[in-house]
Amino acid sequence: MRLLLLVRAYQVSGHMKAKLDPLGLEQRPVPDVLDPAFYGFSESDLDREFFLGVWRMAGFLSENRPVQTLRSVLGRLEQAYCGTIGYEYMHIPDREKCNWLRERIETVNPREYTYDRRQVMLDRLIWSTQFENFLAQKWTTAKRFGLEGAETLIPGMKEMFDRAADLGVESIVIGMPHRGRLNVLGNVVRKPLRQIFSEFSGGTKPVNEGEGLYTGTGDVKYHLGTSYDRPTRGGKHIHLSLVANPSHLEAVDPVVAGKTRAKQYYSNDLDRTKNLGVLLHGDGSFSGQGVVYETLHLSALPNYTTGGTIHLVVNNQVAFTTDPMSGRSSQYCTDVAKALDAPIFHVNGDDLEAVVHTCELAAEWRQTFHSDVVVDIVCYRRFGHNEIDEPSFTQPKMYKVIRNHPSALEIYQNQLLESGKISKEDIDKIHKKVSTILNEEFKKSKDDIPNKRDWLSAYWTGFKSPEQISRIRNTGVKPEILKRVGEAMTTLPETFKPHRAVKKIFDLRRQMIETGEGIDWAVGEALAFATLIIEGNHVRLSGQDVERGTFSHRHSVIHDQETGEQYCPLDNLVMNQNEELFTVSNSSLSEFAVLGFELGYSMENPNSLVLWEAQFGDFSNGAQVIFDQFISSGEAKWLRQTGLVVCLPHGYDGQGPEHSSARMERFLQVSFCPGCKDVD
Amino acid sequence: MRLLLLVRAYQVSGHMKAKLDPLGLEQRPVPDVLDPAFYGFSESDLDREFFLGVWRMAGFLSENRPVQTLRSVLGRLEQAYCGTIGYEYMHIPDREKCNWLRERIETVNPREYTYDRRQVMLDRLIWSTQFENFLAQKWTTAKRFGLEGAETLIPGMKEMFDRAADLGVESIVIGMPHRGRLNVLGNVVRKPLRQIFSEFSGGTKPVNEGEGLYTGTGDVKYHLGTSYDRPTRGGKHIHLSLVANPSHLEAVDPVVAGKTRAKQYYSNDLDRTKNLGVLLHGDGSFSGQGVVYETLHLSALPNYTTGGTIHLVVNNQVAFTTDPMSGRSSQYCTDVAKALDAPIFHVNGDDLEAVVHTCELAAEWRQTFHSDVVVDIVCYRRFGHNEIDEPSFTQPKMYKVIRNHPSALEIYQNQLLESGKISKEDIDKIHKKVSTILNEEFKKSKDDIPNKRDWLSAYWTGFKSPEQISRIRNTGVKPEILKRVGEAMTTLPETFKPHRAVKKIFDLRRQMIETGEGIDWAVGEALAFATLIIEGNHVRLSGQDVERGTFSHRHSVIHDQETGEQYCPLDNLVMNQNEELFTVSNSSLSEFAVLGFELGYSMENPNSLVLWEAQFGDFSNGAQVIFDQFISSGEAKWLRQTGLVVCLPHGYDGQGPEHSSARMERFLQVSFCPGCKDVD
Repeated sequence: MRLLLLVRAYQVSGHMKAKLDPLGLEQRPVPDVLDPAFYGFSESDLDREFFLGVWRMAGFLSENRPVQTLRSVLGRLEQAYCGTIGYEYMHIPDREKCNWLRERIETVNPREYTYDRRQVMLDRLIWSTQFENFLAQKWTTAKRFGLEGAETLIPGMKEMFDRAADLGVESIVIGMPHRGRLNVLGNVVRKPLRQIFSEFSGGTKPVNEGEGLYTGTGDVKYHLGTSYDRPTRGGKHIHLSLVANPSHLEAVDPVVAGKTRAKQYYSNDLDRTKNLGVLLHGDGSFSGQGVVYETLHLSALPNYTTGGTIHLVVNNQVAFTTDPMSGRSSQYCTDVAKALDAPIFHVNGDDLEAVVHTCELAAEWRQTFHSDVVVDIVCYRRFGHNEIDEPSFTQPKMYKVIRNHPSALEIYQNQLLESGKISKEDIDKIHKKVSTILNEEFKKSKDDIPNKRDWLSAYWTGFKSPEQISRIRNTGVKPEILKRVGEAMTTLPETFKPHRAVKKIFDLRRQMIETGEGIDWAVGEALAFATLIIEGNHVRLSGQDVERGTFSHRHSVIHDQETGEQYCPLDNLVMNQNEELFTVSNSSLSEFAVLGFELGYSMENPNSLVLWEAQFGDFSNGAQVIFDQFISSGEAKWLRQTGLVVCLPHGYDGQGPEHSSARMERFLQVSFCPGCKDVD
Repeated sequence: MRLLLLVRAYQVSGHMKAKLDPLGLEQRPVPDVLDPAFYGFSESDLDREFFLGVWRMAGFLSENRPVQTLRSVLGRLEQAYCGTIGYEYMHIPDREKCNWLRERIETVNPREYTYDRRQVMLDRLIWSTQFENFLAQKWTTAKRFGLEGAETLIPGMKEMFDRAADLGVESIVIGMPHRGRLNVLGNVVRKPLRQIFSEFSGGTKPVNEGEGLYTGTGDVKYHLGTSYDRPTRGGKHIHLSLVANPSHLEAVDPVVAGKTRAKQYYSNDLDRTKNLGVLLHGDGSFSGQGVVYETLHLSALPNYTTGGTIHLVVNNQVAFTTDPMSGRSSQYCTDVAKALDAPIFHVNGDDLEAVVHTCELAAEWRQTFHSDVVVDIVCYRRFGHNEIDEPSFTQPKMYKVIRNHPSALEIYQNQLLESGKISKEDIDKIHKKVSTILNEEFKKSKDDIPNKRDWLSAYWTGFKSPEQISRIRNTGVKPEILKRVGEAMTTLPETFKPHRAVKKIFDLRRQMIETGEGIDWAVGEALAFATLIIEGNHVRLSGQDVERGTFSHRHSVIHDQETGEQYCPLDNLVMNQNEELFTVSNSSLSEFAVLGFELGYSMENPNSLVLWEAQFGDFSNGAQVIFDQFISSGEAKWLRQTGLVVCLPHGYDGQGPEHSSARMERFLQVSFCPGCKDVD
């Protein structure tokens, strides 16, 4: 019984004793529940044999070894829970999921990768490390937010993506902050290196080919997005898109989720296993920014889930200059994920194989349980917040250690050499290959000035640039069509029992359509949606209480008063349709994350109508960052277009000053059309 | 051993079986770990006796009853964990805290209140209930966001405040959304009823007495703040302030925290036990709004903690029309609190005594452990989101049940009558008393038109209104003073080892001050702070990395390069000072919560300089709600003044478009001075 308690204590709190900090500066007291003495065991018990029994639990306790010494039990527990990976999963209430993890944590033998796998990991780590060294040499004074101190992220991501591809993922949408972005672009997304180098030198030429001229103001190199097809280890291809992001950390999170969801919609990915969203975070922003929380709370909602986002925290153990103890109120920066029942794997960023292992495990979790998972790579920033900053001003002790600390690559190379598993020649060969390619690409970059059009998304080909004025077209439809869809819109199934007042509204609507008189906003809107739908376009309306409508005016989903069953007339316009063309969905009580989500959704395909409606228009300022950083400036900065429609109901309706204005002046202020000189 | 596992399962998951929903609609599967059969127990084991042993654990297992039948153990567990209170605390890693709670949960006998306590609770519930009934009768068509369905909140809050007062609390700052606000104002804060009624009828007269004329646009009645001194059950007085809030739910959270912290500063409340912050939340907003998360992450930071906020969730089991399953991705709306190691007490809102018990327990926790705690009152909204809305449109089944569901008052009265503990006459007497007072106050309200000045905060008496232009005064100081403080500012302790470059900066500063030439921003700023401090004014500067400064220019806190020790020159200006007049603090990586916090802090006392600095000026839009809803409009809406200074560094410094503007035009747009007609 005491031993059982000890085992459980390791499962719950073993991570507190894990060696997570590559710098060895972390001073965490070991919880006394991990001390055998706490349970009355003494030195002399170590070699006593205990009967563990077979419990209804996977992992350690289910093994077919009824009798073990305390020493051997402790050894296994230490190995499983207190190495360079700290597992947090015992907060997950689902026993099946815990057992799945327990099996992988406790019973798998120490990771033993083959020569080939190790060769690949090493190769990838060399690429990651040399890439930064190369940039540092060529552009000595440039700010590039390099990855030094977290180089294992690159092999970790690549192995994660390979594993995901093995498990059926075909496309990954990535969101990340600036640190290591260029490295990810070059080594993970496989954007041609010559192009990265050329852009880094400041060269881009405007697009100009009939359809439109794109100049834009552009943005710094560590904000740009891109997308490529990358071959995987398993011989498949995987499509990777890195979403452009502003300096506002974490703001890209919901955009990535929305874009992923849209990809799932358009690729008919019903079980959400073909399209995956991956988000990279910093430790400071993950625990600091509210949009992280809002986005996590979208993760299991029927109309917002993407079947699980994989979160990778690049944990620098310091924000910009702020220590964790001044930056968050929880032990780990990842603790919010516990509220969402996500497993959290903390891993020492200096241990390449451990990083790879947790990254693969995260991919397996996501493809198995279709929910969020977090990998917290504990690392450091060798050169501070950015290359032209001086971190010793504020973290002198940490940086004293860092100055003498070997790189993850040095550590791994030594480890392989010592074990005799890979030879010095093998290693040198890879170094030489990488360095040759880097130099060649650099040479080519001088002639290869990339085209800004490369930033444009495939579906948007042919769309006008902001410098061209569109002709105003007649978008009306024939009255017969309006009458036909109007009839369908106002017809309820015979057995359906609507609320008395709703029945009245539907009768009135029918009358409006028949007579063509007194058509109100709700009917006008529904007719607009309906005519788009019958033409085969996807319409998605999302926001707080939009199904009924804040003002009880829309009733796009109605509820049977006896059974509670729901009915959405616009879902039933087209007979025998294969896909759900219409989505209307109440959102969570968030503006920032939900608007960001719909923006990401809208970016995927121009031939759709995506709308976000604010509860009241003035609430939109909760999502101000999305308006300022993405919607109003995304095209000028990143050539990213969107057809998102935003509804901001407001008016002097006696509700006090709060809802009397959606601040239209602010929206006008940020609207600038370079083609319309008079308006400017 | 199996029994031990069963006990632990109840401690961890017993809440899953608790009867929390007053409507009985909740359908949660009972976890199989709560089934004795899961551990191999059968019916025949129920009367077997087990030896539980004495474990190093408080509560159930520590009791001096070595032998018990399984039946009796199960009975106790069910009673402790599966009644009308669901306890979540096993996620707290601190064993001492768990034991403290366990003792209160497991070993205390069923709550048995005295006749007197019950009489008081009943009285308070009658007040709460009758207050809403009265408003409903008098203003039949008004929107008042009544408390019907959650009336036990009022006695709960009052008993919580009484208990807090017993334990040393002298002042409570409250933030809450609109639902039940009038009831809280009248019955908890004790704002005179005649005044509430008069304001509800629309009457207020402007302030006009020499100092200034306050008209303002005002705001709806369910947004206004106020403050009063309330006598407590224990014969003490407690100061209550309800902070004015906008319609933007949860935005008031950090404001309350900041105001509480300021009260602690000015009352020299070093252990933070005299001033308490209490926040009320709705279920939808608590899990939807990111500012909740950001505010929680301030709770343990050295310069932001208030020694624990008590959170009360008025859990309506539906947002506006949105069901929980479409509004959040976690089981409970409170799950985020688990990330902060706060205990969470879920309680069935129909059980008055259980509500009172959890409210008292929360006060005890806060005064014992000085950290956050959550009470989740599971209730319902009898009349929907507001009185003129129709909830059956979207929640027909729930409202069918509600229509036939007795009020919490009816339930409690019947319970008391059945048990014979209180007589029908007792109850009728209270009803009559309350109804008489309500009617009298209503009559008096017609003549008693309240003064808008009542909204003004005590410290602000004498400050100019926005309609008066201030004379520009000479605020300079003599050069000798600048030299004197300048010297102190640039002197480091002899043993202190600064970074080489910092040493240089300090030498340069000394030179600037001596010559009076080339004074830069940092020195000018430091001189301004220093001269305010030596005059005895409190200066507080907060924001991301402000100690050193984003641009490495401030160095207001420097770090010994060997020991890591910190030194703040401005802290050492005044010898023998009693209080810390200067605070400079790196904040978490949040804008919304931190700006809100500093705003709340600044509102407490006009004779201070409170500053928030954005990392870059354009990040301020993450806190747009605080600018729009509080800073730019708080005085016009609520007569709330602030002297907060906001620093927004920005400029064309080659960092791309992101940081080139703090959008000054937007700040100008929301600045409107009714006194300065030409500027307008």
